[in-house]
Amino acid sequence: MSRGFYIGRFQPYHNGHQSVLEGMAREVDEIVIGVGSAQLSHELDNPFTAGERVLMITGALKEVVCPIYVIPIEDLQRNALWVSHVRSMTPPFDAVYTSNPVVMRLFEEAGVAVTSPAMYERDSLSGTKIRSRMIRREAWEHLVPESVVDVIEEIDGVERLRQIARSD
Amino acid sequence: MSRGFYIGRFQPYHNGHQSVLEGMAREVDEIVIGVGSAQLSHELDNPFTAGERVLMITGALKEVVCPIYVIPIEDLQRNALWVSHVRSMTPPFDAVYTSNPVVMRLFEEAGVAVTSPAMYERDSLSGTKIRSRMIRREAWEHLVPESVVDVIEEIDGVERLRQIARSD
Amino acid sequence: MSRGFYIGRFQPYHNGHQSVLEGMAREVDEIVIGVGSAQLSHELDNPFTAGERVLMITGALKEVVCPIYVIPIEDLQRNALWVSHVRSMTPPFDAVYTSNPVVMRLFEEAGVAVTSPAMYERDSLSGTKIRSRMIRREAWEHLVPESVVDVIEEIDGVERLRQIARSD
Amino acid sequence: MSRGFYIGRFQPYHNGHQSVLEGMAREVDEIVIGVGSAQLSHELDNPFTAGERVLMITGALKEVVCPIYVIPIEDLQRNALWVSHVRSMTPPFDAVYTSNPVVMRLFEEAGVAVTSPAMYERDSLSGTKIRSRMIRREAWEHLVPESVVDVIEEIDGVERLRQIARSD
Amino acid sequence: MSRGFYIGRFQPYHNGHQSVLEGMAREVDEIVIGVGSAQLSHELDNPFTAGERVLMITGALKEVVCPIYVIPIEDLQRNALWVSHVRSMTPPFDAVYTSNPVVMRLFEEAGVAVTSPAMYERDSLSGTKIRSRMIRREAWEHLVPESVVDVIEEIDGVERLRQIARSD
Amino acid sequence: MSRGFYIGRFQPYHNGHQSVLEGMAREVDEIVIGVGSAQLSHELDNPFTAGERVLMITGALKEVVCPIYVIPIEDLQRNALWVSHVRSMTPPFDAVYTSNPVVMRLFEEAGVAVTSPAMYERDSLSGTKIRSRMIRREAWEHLVPESVVDVIEEIDGVERLRQIARSD
Repeated sequence: MSRGFYIGRFQPYHNGHQSVLEGMAREVDEIVIGVGSAQLSHELDNPFTAGERVLMITGALKEVVCPIYVIPIEDLQRNALWVSHVRSMTPPFDAVYTSNPVVMRLFEEAGVAVTSPAMYERDSLSGTKIRSRMIRREAWEHLVPESVVDVIEEIDGVERLRQIARSD
Repeated sequence: MSRGFYIGRFQPYHNGHQSVLEGMAREVDEIVIGVGSAQLSHELDNPFTAGERVLMITGALKEVVCPIYVIPIEDLQRNALWVSHVRSMTPPFDAVYTSNPVVMRLFEEAGVAVTSPAMYERDSLSGTKIRSRMIRREAWEHLVPESVVDVIEEIDGVERLRQIARSD
Repeated sequence: MSRGFYIGRFQPYHNGHQSVLEGMAREVDEIVIGVGSAQLSHELDNPFTAGERVLMITGALKEVVCPIYVIPIEDLQRNALWVSHVRSMTPPFDAVYTSNPVVMRLFEEAGVAVTSPAMYERDSLSGTKIRSRMIRREAWEHLVPESVVDVIEEIDGVERLRQIARSD
Repeated sequence: MSRGFYIGRFQPYHNGHQSVLEGMAREVDEIVIGVGSAQLSHELDNPFTAGERVLMITGALKEVVCPIYVIPIEDLQRNALWVSHVRSMTPPFDAVYTSNPVVMRLFEEAGVAVTSPAMYERDSLSGTKIRSRMIRREAWEHLVPESVVDVIEEIDGVERLRQIARSD
Repeated sequence: MSRGFYIGRFQPYHNGHQSVLEGMAREVDEIVIGVGSAQLSHELDNPFTAGERVLMITGALKEVVCPIYVIPIEDLQRNALWVSHVRSMTPPFDAVYTSNPVVMRLFEEAGVAVTSPAMYERDSLSGTKIRSRMIRREAWEHLVPESVVDVIEEIDGVERLRQIARSD
Repeated sequence: MSRGFYIGRFQPYHNGHQSVLEGMAREVDEIVIGVGSAQLSHELDNPFTAGERVLMITGALKEVVCPIYVIPIEDLQRNALWVSHVRSMTPPFDAVYTSNPVVMRLFEEAGVAVTSPAMYERDSLSGTKIRSRMIRREAWEHLVPESVVDVIEEIDGVERLRQIARSD
């Protein structure tokens, strides 16, 4: 059995993530998703709590048939320990899917195989751009799975982000 | 929709936990399981990593039909912040199932309803007793779900615990 | 009895803070002042220790008759836990006075009433501007209560700030 | 002007502490009180939050005329840094009053004068004994200042302690 | 070139440690010594600072010709990350010498070869016993290298330990 | 006997550091070198682990005859405690050599003599410039001692830095 690992901050979870994970689901038997910077929320770059992000991801992947583990991963601020930290919090995995050069390097130095997934529509689909659209009251709903729209509405997420953005 | 929260250290996950969760599955629509002291492992009282415990729990609950979230929760060592910490890491829940008096008190002071589940066969089914049996090479396999036996064998868990127990 | 909470970093405490607190003293029975980022000092943006800031605040409010609690609050770097953290370190309060959008949002999500005080002469009275004046050897003494001048002189505060500012 | 420092955990604040502080008030101009292990609460040995303890102390010392600073001090778990930690959180002081041998040693190695106050009725007046009495529903109210009784009643403190004590 | 790793708390460094290291010096080209629980000091079980312990070790090994690295290692309280933590703080090593079962297990799970050195005169030579002798004013000087006696005298170490031991 | 303290991040150790330390070796009997931000690695500004930096420094100073202690120092993020932190991790020293204004100020407030060494060829010799040269594949080897080139090659350091630099 093969298990693949994918990590992101998912602020918020969007169609680009969804596309990568649907691709992974065709290649591995089970998927472990790490929700990075789990301890952060209510910040301009990290508006949503780990729990809210778990809810977004689980809802969006309901149709995917392979077993999925969604695991919050708190930051350590010690890169040399990060791979061990991730491994201690997750079921064992044999492949890592990431486009982040630091994550890539850390797993490679630990001897783990890393695949860089082609991110779908990267330009329009970064979390940064979606958060900017929310702050400027522009349409963002078409860039994320429907279930993510539901979660963000339920937690009054756009208003939270817009209020935080008033900080100087 | 109702969501229930259950927390434990699951060192290891055993039939008593399984019995409580099967009961909860009949009462709530979704279950959130917190894996407490997630950062601890390779200790006499905490031999298994959070990831290993996630694997045990998920395997044992494969037959349970209601959606289940299994979330590692690291210790904070600040009881007054613990309820907020749990809430930030988990999907929102409205009921807590626990027999731990401190957990009970903390959620009650936060205004959350707490149910104390009757623990099935409490005497033979504490984690402490199962770990003692492992150390003394006595039978323990009948006290946990089959999938837990598989995980512990796969990670050489009994030998890990027995080696740690040689510490003075 | 009503108790109001006001939080700032007070680097240093200045006439704008004084004006807000004198206003609060007319509205509530007791005041709790949180000294934020208490663990920071000897930095360009945070030159003074929590203890030095407690001394500034207490001296400046000697004439105010209502009871005042001045409480250092260390950073947690976890916004979702911050309201619980503040509450655990302070006597209970029912109203929060703040102009900081993140503090405002966090207390509102926790169901606490928030008042945004009109800051007196905001333009000339930010801590940032006072620290700039100190570094450039411009007059700053008229922007803070007299007792604050005394504390800063006693601890050689301007020279400390100017030396730190030489860092590249 | 002389300033004296006194530290304790105050779980709860009792007549022995009151007696020491009344003595100090006759010897120094101002008193700084450190509320130790500020981050702990809801534990058998540390039932009350720092904020609750600040409230107890301030109420009990209302009649004492000398200025008093009550400062929560979080644990560091690094004894060699503890004196610097205390100094950074408090107004400067020149004398320390303590009977704790470790605190005594740490301040002495830092070159600070330490006085060991004769604790009033030490036998009946330890926090440990008062907490035991609370758990066993024995009278404890005569061992603490009246205002402490009020605070503990307001926060339902005895019941909190008794519930926590049911932990195994 | 081979490099061997040896870890201890060295509270204090004694003839048993010396004997193990003299043995290692005959088997490897270079030695890395980890000074564990580096952040602890001024405790009954950990009276000496990391710096004091570095001084003891370096003095005692002056005659040993092979290159020696003495590295303080702070605790992490996360066993699953401990090997990575040690590796990040030390020059790379290929062999570990330890009698501690947990250290042994952690390195073995990480795929590192572990040798268990026969500890010389284990009964009389534990740190615990030496500290007890110091507290009871019994002879301890013959159990440690001469340079260790010098360091402990210079820092007034016995008196520090005896004063701390008066804590209840 | 006099002991001098020198601290840096050494990312990487270069000829400027070497020049300062050769100067110190003529003025003091023993040298203590603190490897700052020891917990950081695999970052654009901090590519090398503490252990790798210890290796660089020790190799480069092999010819220097005076005894040298190389000690990793983890960050505390609390400037007011930093001098105590350094002192607890190192053998006692009586002189500090630094050009960093904050380090200078902190030691001066603690009453320690500080010398500001004239840094040799400061313009071409900052760590920042060497890291830039590595990323742009320009020559950097002539700016560091030969043994540092060896260490960086052994750990594939340039490639690590270049890969990390691809992060956005």
